[in-house]
Amino acid sequence: MKISARNNLKGTVKKIIPGVVSTEVTLEIAPGVEVVSVITKSSADQMHLSIGKEAYMVIKATDVMVGVD
Amino acid sequence: MKISARNNLKGTVKKIIPGVVSTEVTLEIAPGVEVVSVITKSSADQMHLSIGKEAYMVIKATDVMVGVD
Amino acid sequence: MKISARNNLKGTVKKIIPGVVSTEVTLEIAPGVEVVSVITKSSADQMHLSIGKEAYMVIKATDVMVGVD
Amino acid sequence: MKISARNNLKGTVKKIIPGVVSTEVTLEIAPGVEVVSVITKSSADQMHLSIGKEAYMVIKATDVMVGVD
Amino acid sequence: MKISARNNLKGTVKKIIPGVVSTEVTLEIAPGVEVVSVITKSSADQMHLSIGKEAYMVIKATDVMVGVD
Amino acid sequence: MKISARNNLKGTVKKIIPGVVSTEVTLEIAPGVEVVSVITKSSADQMHLSIGKEAYMVIKATDVMVGVD
Repeated sequence: MKISARNNLKGTVKKIIPGVVSTEVTLEIAPGVEVVSVITKSSADQMHLSIGKEAYMVIKATDVMVGVD
Repeated sequence: MKISARNNLKGTVKKIIPGVVSTEVTLEIAPGVEVVSVITKSSADQMHLSIGKEAYMVIKATDVMVGVD
Repeated sequence: MKISARNNLKGTVKKIIPGVVSTEVTLEIAPGVEVVSVITKSSADQMHLSIGKEAYMVIKATDVMVGVD
Repeated sequence: MKISARNNLKGTVKKIIPGVVSTEVTLEIAPGVEVVSVITKSSADQMHLSIGKEAYMVIKATDVMVGVD
Repeated sequence: MKISARNNLKGTVKKIIPGVVSTEVTLEIAPGVEVVSVITKSSADQMHLSIGKEAYMVIKATDVMVGVD
Repeated sequence: MKISARNNLKGTVKKIIPGVVSTEVTLEIAPGVEVVSVITKSSADQMHLSIGKEAYMVIKATDVMVGVD
């Protein structure tokens, strides 16, 4: 499926912290650049995520803020 | 200000498309890796964003989804 | 791509309202049940959405609220 | 209260998974069509949600993505 | 309707900026404290929002970040 | 860092409920006006939040809905 979310960042799973309802997943999307996601535990289980696996961070453009120093 | 958003991706402004209420901003956060954001036009104006300027993409972890092939 | 968003609602495109930066898309996902989405105009254009086309509404579980009368 | 969220999908509570901070709630909004929500446990408790109860899924249009095959 | 969004901030409409698809609405929720919202133009029209009218800002807890100096 | 999120509401931490992955934080932003946030436990820990501490609620304008009676 092609999705309207403008951001698809390819990376490698670095860390998985499972909770009761939510699971925290960290991907490295470029050398030294990590993105953290919180998804439902069910989704994480269904996708069989594991350390070292290739995956994508998918983010809707309206959910991205811009910061400047 | 230090913010609870887990994701702060440093990059360079590549493209700005202003609308009436919303503005679309694209940053390159690693060579060949771009992230697109839609913010209010007022915010974009107040931050004086321009092509080539250094900026950050700030994303709350609960707004990030994970995809696998 | 398989995505962690828990909600994938299949439907038919009923209405498209293009703006400058954003486009509003309405899908009928069951007889008489419509879901409205606002995505970037670029995404709408890239997916070649048109009235009557089959599509999906994809929604992250943390973005869904519950209401009771 | 009338709310600006464009999507109000009426349904029946099918499943409730309580966590420590978050609770996952599943509604059937049309025959065979389910929507999953993650809300705070406090909200779920205050609304006295239970299996079989009638409820609504409320979703802001900017939180809905569109997918095509 | 009672909704699971944890935050309902009562206030007065101070400013309305209509766009093509989106409308920006500003409420004063306490003396000198304003909250800005971007909703679809259709929603704003259907709610007959106008300057000075009483309204609420409704925000899901997972959409609120915390910052410290 | 200056951020594009239009809403920065200054307040005092009133309550903290830690979960496994998520933590719920309540701030009083005006006398009698509280805002509830759910952030990752890691963020809460890193910011050393505690009762009585001064903090901000940061909210993107597209995540704010409007309600009327």
